[in-house]
Amino acid sequence: MLLLTPGPVTTRPEVRAATALDYAPWDLEFRALVSRVCDDLLAIAGGRPGEHVTLPLQGCGHFAMEAAVRSFVPPGGRLLVPMTGDYARRLARLAREAAREVTELPLQDDLPADPAQVEAALRADPAVSHLAIIYSETSTGVVHPVPALAAVAARLGRRVIVDAVSAFGALPLDLSALPAVDAVGFTANKCLESLPGAVFVTARTDRLRGARGRAGSWSLDLADLYEVSLDRPGSHRFTPAAGVIAALAVALDLYRAEGGQPARLARYRENQEALCDGMRALGLRPMLPPAVQGPIVVNIAAPDSPAWDLQRFVDRLKARGVLISNFGCTSEPSFRVGCIGAIGPADMRRAVAAMGEVMAEMGALPRRTAA
Amino acid sequence: MLLLTPGPVTTRPEVRAATALDYAPWDLEFRALVSRVCDDLLAIAGGRPGEHVTLPLQGCGHFAMEAAVRSFVPPGGRLLVPMTGDYARRLARLAREAAREVTELPLQDDLPADPAQVEAALRADPAVSHLAIIYSETSTGVVHPVPALAAVAARLGRRVIVDAVSAFGALPLDLSALPAVDAVGFTANKCLESLPGAVFVTARTDRLRGARGRAGSWSLDLADLYEVSLDRPGSHRFTPAAGVIAALAVALDLYRAEGGQPARLARYRENQEALCDGMRALGLRPMLPPAVQGPIVVNIAAPDSPAWDLQRFVDRLKARGVLISNFGCTSEPSFRVGCIGAIGPADMRRAVAAMGEVMAEMGALPRRTAA
Repeated sequence: MLLLTPGPVTTRPEVRAATALDYAPWDLEFRALVSRVCDDLLAIAGGRPGEHVTLPLQGCGHFAMEAAVRSFVPPGGRLLVPMTGDYARRLARLAREAAREVTELPLQDDLPADPAQVEAALRADPAVSHLAIIYSETSTGVVHPVPALAAVAARLGRRVIVDAVSAFGALPLDLSALPAVDAVGFTANKCLESLPGAVFVTARTDRLRGARGRAGSWSLDLADLYEVSLDRPGSHRFTPAAGVIAALAVALDLYRAEGGQPARLARYRENQEALCDGMRALGLRPMLPPAVQGPIVVNIAAPDSPAWDLQRFVDRLKARGVLISNFGCTSEPSFRVGCIGAIGPADMRRAVAAMGEVMAEMGALPRRTAA
Repeated sequence: MLLLTPGPVTTRPEVRAATALDYAPWDLEFRALVSRVCDDLLAIAGGRPGEHVTLPLQGCGHFAMEAAVRSFVPPGGRLLVPMTGDYARRLARLAREAAREVTELPLQDDLPADPAQVEAALRADPAVSHLAIIYSETSTGVVHPVPALAAVAARLGRRVIVDAVSAFGALPLDLSALPAVDAVGFTANKCLESLPGAVFVTARTDRLRGARGRAGSWSLDLADLYEVSLDRPGSHRFTPAAGVIAALAVALDLYRAEGGQPARLARYRENQEALCDGMRALGLRPMLPPAVQGPIVVNIAAPDSPAWDLQRFVDRLKARGVLISNFGCTSEPSFRVGCIGAIGPADMRRAVAAMGEVMAEMGALPRRTAA
């Protein structure tokens, strides 16, 4: 089965095989493994050892982002969220539910966030302590200019939190050049091509030291987690999905062997182009113009046919060994295809062929192709 | 490797094998699997469909308990925590960090909590809305009388939250007879003998409906999770450790095949007795008298020998294929051995033999045995 979603992704059998053992999280060998994984992730984030640290958290990307917001934005503090799509809306909601104030910056969601607009919004509201940026908006497929946005925040003396959940490992990141960034949250199961169940936050150590007692949640308190990790390196505080961490260690070996971030990004870009080319050849239209389309996920406008039905399409495609999301993320009917995971352009072309066959079978192929 | 800890536990290969596939959490087949798992867990909890529901959460037991406290104890509300040991201290701390008030009831930690003492404490403080009970205190090995304690709370019009993290599946539970219980938190990776990374809360649906907007954390809001699950059964809201859920489905099949809760408890009790008998034969002393010793975990007083060193003992035991915790939970030096997981009394006797060999090798065997 090809899992073509923006996470969880198709993984390699040797990654999944690491879950075939039972692990004890407090065991010294296991803790050494966690430390090694966190060090590797710190390097991928472009963090400086000592200045930054990567902390391992249980759960999902959403938990990592709530932990980052709770730990770095003081209660009653204010966060500016450029509204790039569903994940920006989620971030705004999780911040509000954690009793942080949110200023939403309305944006056109099919364009990268404009640093000038963000600058104006920050200038307009001195109460904003933090800017929150979604690096790759999973709902739209648009990639946002993290370095330029973080530079704006730095210039105005504001701090930054980055949601890199669907970007980390594929899109470039160099925290050593982004001193305004307090924290970046991400997961093992998207561009790192491991399994879901382990997430991470890379954060500035000076800011963590100043964050004690701020989170209002022991589970999601990164300052406490940092303190424990100083005392017991590689500790999660509470039981992690240990097999998932072991699988990530294997996935990181494969990541390095492939050539790291540039190689991974190049492969995903090839996947995305193979998909978009194939869709256009079928007479279908990616929702974004090529200049704006990110490499992680593509929304395709649904065929304008009364025979179109997303769940039926998904079911029939699944019967052919290709699994895509059974929900759309756009106001106009669409279907979404993830370009990430342990797949290459040949897999994507196979998937495109299967999509064409299913649409033909459904009688939903655009006329100019069917003709 | 025999993992003899009170979780994560030794699991069966067919359980771990379920992680050898990639799963899409929103896939209809996967959601049906989640619903089936939650229904099975509801039955094990003795919940009544409609009156109770089992909700799946990402992360660890600690997160499940924080979610239960946040969702059911209103902010500023007061929780009575009988101080049964480390896990009671953890629960008190997580409640305080979530801005709930806590009254600690000091107890002798080597005895089951006395309902009369709990009753007096509840009567003394009408501001207490909830009683929190640790069913099996993993730090001491003592099992606490949940039905009697919940009956006391019910009589006084108070609500109950149960931490069943290291008890669920082995110790009996019949929520249909305990109407004062709002929520019970537990994990897949202890007495259910599956992998870590998936946790659950079984809760009253009437109380969930009254809990909207109370949690102060979207990630840990059970009322929101319940609402979403009504609309999309089997949904986790955010990405779960999907392979871990699939493994749990297999583990639940094995649970039923074994004979369910009574059979599992009987096996664990046999494991615990094989361990205690073996330890006494080596001249070592379980910290608890047999009448109080629960079946989940046993603390053994460390040999009174200058040659004793816990980490060395653990390392040498591991080299013989038996892994126990490398930390003690008692003020007096001790080591702890879990009696749960996919192991039987023969495994336990093998482990006891290995412990004896290692102690002899270390020169730490009590004299009367060595003589």
